[in-house]
Amino acid sequence: LSDSLNIGIAGLGTVGVGVVKLLTEQQALLRDKCGRPLNIAAVSARSRNKDRGVDLGAYRWHDDPLALADDPGVDLVVELIGGEDGVAKALVERALAAGKDVVTANKALLAHHGTALAEIAEGNDVSLNYEAAVAGGIPIVKALREGLAGNPISRVYGILNGTCNYILTTMRETGRDFGDVLAEAQRLGYAEADPAFDIDGVDAAHKLAILTSLAFGCPVDFGHVHVEGVRDVSALDIEYAEELGYRIKLLAMASHTEHGIEQRVHPCMVDADTPIAHVDGVFNAVVAEGAYVGQTVFEGQGAGAGPTASAVVADLIDVACGRRAAPFGVSVTRFKRPDPAAMAAHQGAYYLRFMVQDRPGVLAELAGVLRDEEVSIESLLQRSRSADDPVPVVMITHETREDCMIRAVRAIGGLDAVLGQPTLIRIEHL
Amino acid sequence: LSDSLNIGIAGLGTVGVGVVKLLTEQQALLRDKCGRPLNIAAVSARSRNKDRGVDLGAYRWHDDPLALADDPGVDLVVELIGGEDGVAKALVERALAAGKDVVTANKALLAHHGTALAEIAEGNDVSLNYEAAVAGGIPIVKALREGLAGNPISRVYGILNGTCNYILTTMRETGRDFGDVLAEAQRLGYAEADPAFDIDGVDAAHKLAILTSLAFGCPVDFGHVHVEGVRDVSALDIEYAEELGYRIKLLAMASHTEHGIEQRVHPCMVDADTPIAHVDGVFNAVVAEGAYVGQTVFEGQGAGAGPTASAVVADLIDVACGRRAAPFGVSVTRFKRPDPAAMAAHQGAYYLRFMVQDRPGVLAELAGVLRDEEVSIESLLQRSRSADDPVPVVMITHETREDCMIRAVRAIGGLDAVLGQPTLIRIEHL
Repeated sequence: LSDSLNIGIAGLGTVGVGVVKLLTEQQALLRDKCGRPLNIAAVSARSRNKDRGVDLGAYRWHDDPLALADDPGVDLVVELIGGEDGVAKALVERALAAGKDVVTANKALLAHHGTALAEIAEGNDVSLNYEAAVAGGIPIVKALREGLAGNPISRVYGILNGTCNYILTTMRETGRDFGDVLAEAQRLGYAEADPAFDIDGVDAAHKLAILTSLAFGCPVDFGHVHVEGVRDVSALDIEYAEELGYRIKLLAMASHTEHGIEQRVHPCMVDADTPIAHVDGVFNAVVAEGAYVGQTVFEGQGAGAGPTASAVVADLIDVACGRRAAPFGVSVTRFKRPDPAAMAAHQGAYYLRFMVQDRPGVLAELAGVLRDEEVSIESLLQRSRSADDPVPVVMITHETREDCMIRAVRAIGGLDAVLGQPTLIRIEHL
Repeated sequence: LSDSLNIGIAGLGTVGVGVVKLLTEQQALLRDKCGRPLNIAAVSARSRNKDRGVDLGAYRWHDDPLALADDPGVDLVVELIGGEDGVAKALVERALAAGKDVVTANKALLAHHGTALAEIAEGNDVSLNYEAAVAGGIPIVKALREGLAGNPISRVYGILNGTCNYILTTMRETGRDFGDVLAEAQRLGYAEADPAFDIDGVDAAHKLAILTSLAFGCPVDFGHVHVEGVRDVSALDIEYAEELGYRIKLLAMASHTEHGIEQRVHPCMVDADTPIAHVDGVFNAVVAEGAYVGQTVFEGQGAGAGPTASAVVADLIDVACGRRAAPFGVSVTRFKRPDPAAMAAHQGAYYLRFMVQDRPGVLAELAGVLRDEEVSIESLLQRSRSADDPVPVVMITHETREDCMIRAVRAIGGLDAVLGQPTLIRIEHL
């Protein structure tokens, strides 16, 4: 292992440039850690002449990223192109098949094709490392794959999308509305011009699907993640949450239930005194619960050039030091095949808010519908506003089955006295 | 790697039995993770006939733990005897020299002899893994050694002793005194019969010395850790801390300063709204600050059979999977040799409490001493009590050099109007 590890980097956006910078700025440190140099041999990106603030002159240039997989001077390919299919997938497959190690930050790719890619990596005796794909700089992939590997994991959950967490944090701190705060986040660069992937929960769901496979040793199953985003979280509900002792967070959670593996991403009310309630702004956090270790919490920056480069380079160091793990901790040949749990079978408490006309009998109507679905109410909040305005009725339920709850809310939404869409937010006692 | 990894375990106390239980209960899981069985081949402990609640009948018994190092049927020795010298050290040295991998939970041993043992391990091409030695089940050794390895680390700190944290948490929650809470902790099994190692800060200092070496790639230097324990923390100071917006924690901190590497363990006032302020009871937490990753936080149970066994077994899995790292992340041959920073040169803010006679001129005397040492006061709290009782005067200083502060406090302690020992607690804005 005394020769340099020759690296080919595909994709020179924020993260790619961050990786180039870290590798050049920390050459001496990395040589000390690895006992050999990490050498950028070749790069590929869309435009050769764009000024990226780093000197690429010393690296071989490939217009076609796939050429990195064929370049005999490249030992390892870093895939930072992104996207679940297309050239990113083709490049990873081709590099692995050519016997090259691969490091990627591509959560969409792994969420959709993780199992198949792991199979190719294992079949070719090479590494497929992706620390940067989940929770940025937090070394949670390594923690689940290695550090907690002696534990059957019962549950893993966390705040996996910094954009949503920034928006929810700012809404709470300022009392402003979602659209307003989103627009500001876009101006500040915390949200993309097209924010759908983040705010609709898809990005968090990609990451969760990867964590689930790592935690439970089963195939990546993005198709069975229940996904809801944060578009419908209102300033009013954040205010009520505060009053009731909760914080609203976009939580991603995978757990072993009696019905199988439950994977879900949606806004949650969490008790204000749990650690996760205090993870604010662009920070991410992951909680893993193991049979022996108990509860462990990992927190840090979930995005950005520096944290992501830190994770990519940690993966490179492992390869340079000759350390390899099966991509998902156990070989795909030994994967368990647990059933997915239907969201309809989910059990939990719920926060409900209905805007109703302030007239006699309305509460009896609501209560009747809930009784018919066997939903039992733990507490109820109703304050009258000015005479003719609709009045918010807020309820917290006891543990209830999701399908009963959904039917009840639909029925209530159809009542004449109920105006607009009812709001339902799940409560999570962590 | 298809044969079993044959393990010899020395020491069958709480942790040793915890490891035996995990290895037997999770055989199938571990075989899946490693691709081969983890097999307990031999054990050694003081008394063969003691009932430990696990069946040891299938394992070879050695009265002399050193025999594990010579046993040709043992590939790897787990050292759970404890103690910085004596048989634990002899066993680890002999096993490494015999080409066997070693896993240990022994922080005292590593704090005193870590560099020398790492040298032997590296010279014999074997692993010396010690995840369980620092922060129990939290995989912080792996995080610093591998997960954050691309970062120059500027600072690492945390709550590393569960006993002290339990005592401080309970004192705050109940308003009770130190001695009272310690006695209760001993009854509950959270503190040892001889609690000195924990409450005097030595245990936390051992762990810090190890973290320092991992973070900065330098020899383990326990001798330069400044250590103070929690015996002198009073209910009154905890009350004042609360009032001033702080929590008192026993913090262990290593940082790069302009004077060199500063390592210190002592009670600290930390802002009540930092994550570390909310790490309560027997939980541990470690914060690492890297140049690229920024701030990362790791939290979990720092002691107990389950969490410690989880860490020991993670180390075993690494060996079984053929993953090896230099014990301190970089080879001892590439260690940096930074100067230790003298505590006298430490810069920080301080909380001071003096019990004074309530008579004219006292405050002028105190203020005069502080002025002479160029200590500047940020805020001052004085409330009169009943007529003849001594009155507490509480001060928060601006940033001050430690040696000036110590001289000033000694001088003030010598004033006639000042009764008893002044209290000094460092303030840490994290």
